[in-house]
Amino acid sequence: MKALVYTDLKTITFKEEKVAVKNEGEELIKVHAAGICGSDMHAYHGLDDRRIPPLILGHEISGINLKDNTPVVINPLITCMKCKDCHDGREHICSNRSLLGMTKPVARAGGFAEFVTAPSQNIFSVPLNANLEELSLTEPTAVAFHAVKIAEKVSLKKIDKANILIIGGGAIGLLLALVLKSKNTKEVIIVDTNLKRLNVCKKASSYAVAHPDDDSIKHNNYDIVFDAVGFEATRKKSIQCVRQGGAILHIGLSQPSGAFDFRKVTLQEITFIGTYCYTNEDFKRSLDMLIAKELGDLTWLDYRPLKDGAAAFKEIHDGTTESPKIILLP
Amino acid sequence: MKALVYTDLKTITFKEEKVAVKNEGEELIKVHAAGICGSDMHAYHGLDDRRIPPLILGHEISGINLKDNTPVVINPLITCMKCKDCHDGREHICSNRSLLGMTKPVARAGGFAEFVTAPSQNIFSVPLNANLEELSLTEPTAVAFHAVKIAEKVSLKKIDKANILIIGGGAIGLLLALVLKSKNTKEVIIVDTNLKRLNVCKKASSYAVAHPDDDSIKHNNYDIVFDAVGFEATRKKSIQCVRQGGAILHIGLSQPSGAFDFRKVTLQEITFIGTYCYTNEDFKRSLDMLIAKELGDLTWLDYRPLKDGAAAFKEIHDGTTESPKIILLP
Repeated sequence: MKALVYTDLKTITFKEEKVAVKNEGEELIKVHAAGICGSDMHAYHGLDDRRIPPLILGHEISGINLKDNTPVVINPLITCMKCKDCHDGREHICSNRSLLGMTKPVARAGGFAEFVTAPSQNIFSVPLNANLEELSLTEPTAVAFHAVKIAEKVSLKKIDKANILIIGGGAIGLLLALVLKSKNTKEVIIVDTNLKRLNVCKKASSYAVAHPDDDSIKHNNYDIVFDAVGFEATRKKSIQCVRQGGAILHIGLSQPSGAFDFRKVTLQEITFIGTYCYTNEDFKRSLDMLIAKELGDLTWLDYRPLKDGAAAFKEIHDGTTESPKIILLP
Repeated sequence: MKALVYTDLKTITFKEEKVAVKNEGEELIKVHAAGICGSDMHAYHGLDDRRIPPLILGHEISGINLKDNTPVVINPLITCMKCKDCHDGREHICSNRSLLGMTKPVARAGGFAEFVTAPSQNIFSVPLNANLEELSLTEPTAVAFHAVKIAEKVSLKKIDKANILIIGGGAIGLLLALVLKSKNTKEVIIVDTNLKRLNVCKKASSYAVAHPDDDSIKHNNYDIVFDAVGFEATRKKSIQCVRQGGAILHIGLSQPSGAFDFRKVTLQEITFIGTYCYTNEDFKRSLDMLIAKELGDLTWLDYRPLKDGAAAFKEIHDGTTESPKIILLP
């Protein structure tokens, strides 16, 4: 089969690979669409020790289940379903979890290929008339949905009344905005240094947008801050901008360490929560939202042929693409 | 009146001062007992820009209200009672709050003196037969009570079933343990590098104790970690030891910045919450617990005459005192 292989630092090669072989309890899926995630870019930059070349990346996947030729979406998060966390509906923190398109803890090829295998329990059937291109967005939508769910739990105000700052106008930042919009939240502003992306975010969400250094971004002002980037600088912005008693939801993995103002966290009773992945229930809810078109028209998605994947990675790296999400089509 | 004045870096002077003059809406209190807090030590070390010499420190105060000669405890946290946070029962994050024994944002003399003034609304009457020495412990108890309350809110397990690590065997660490004990929590371990203090903690709480580097302190093991110290090193220990989906309650202000493992916070969905002070309700509940003797016999409290306060500060600085709390008696 043809596949896009991460072969070396900042090197993606479109080449012939053996078709994935499914093990017991798995299905073979013909990939219809697979989105490029920030974590794929992180691997591309050689910064992810869980993704070692050569590796077929990609975990935001829709396709056709070859068992019965029906349309499906894959939940790429593979969990043991045996541990206490899995039992209690917290599969996302299962200590035995693995992901498609990763080398560690379990090596599994990803979806930037004509075919991919996944455990049967990770495959969600969708209606025959569903838009499979758009449904490849289910996984990042579930990430955003899960983060908003946590924010709802810890927010002092009802989420529709909260004043919210989203740092990062990438796919997660925009999807956070669209999930919040579906909950009728009025006061949301998205900041990013990439003004092209901001325009897309503004058009797609109709929320306000700004450069992070804009005067309109006030300190001690926001009930909830989503840091959908995860650099030391964005964490600094988060802690400056959150109001007393407020919460920061930290989703990005860009910079794993760095200075932080623990004094404000303490004196102002700030809640800082890391969030990553989603539960099965979050995934299902996100899929339902996308099928029901609850997140708007999604014309901001940028589709490319799989064979042009290397150029797409380079464009994202160079910051020349304006869409927050490029989806590859084999 | 005689008072203990923080006059310069690491310098505490017992000297004659003018008796505090009460303003409208305030009362003059004859101090019976006043405990030395970690934040007083922080000032002593020149590390607190809110406490500038010359200043009478001390905010953990019991005494006699001279208006009617009745025994009282002072809540040293003065809040505006007008803002939205005060209205909603979150006085502790009132942005206009001030504290007795601080220079900023409002200069107010503290309780290491024969007399102190406080707003009438901050004065809590106690039974005539109450032990006023012990009740000077109300304020730090309220700090611990408030932190445990937040832990109960965010813990995935009921607090009595949670596996809990307390870092720091000072007054807050021990009071956290005693509050947890009053809630029938079984699995608690207290760590500190000061083995003398640990023995006191063990005796007072009957919980396990250990040096933080002891093999029994496992990584990824605790549902809740209380960092009652607040150094970079204790935050590092906290994040190492908390299990996936767990929470860190950060109470100390020892080191305001420093490296931190944001990667684990994110990948393991850790909740990190800063906590400082308490609500009026927390203060009242803590006072009631102390009056009802719900925190044990408190024989671990170490009483000294106010005139010997300078030596007490030095002993705490040198780490030669074994009691987690020295209380000064004018």
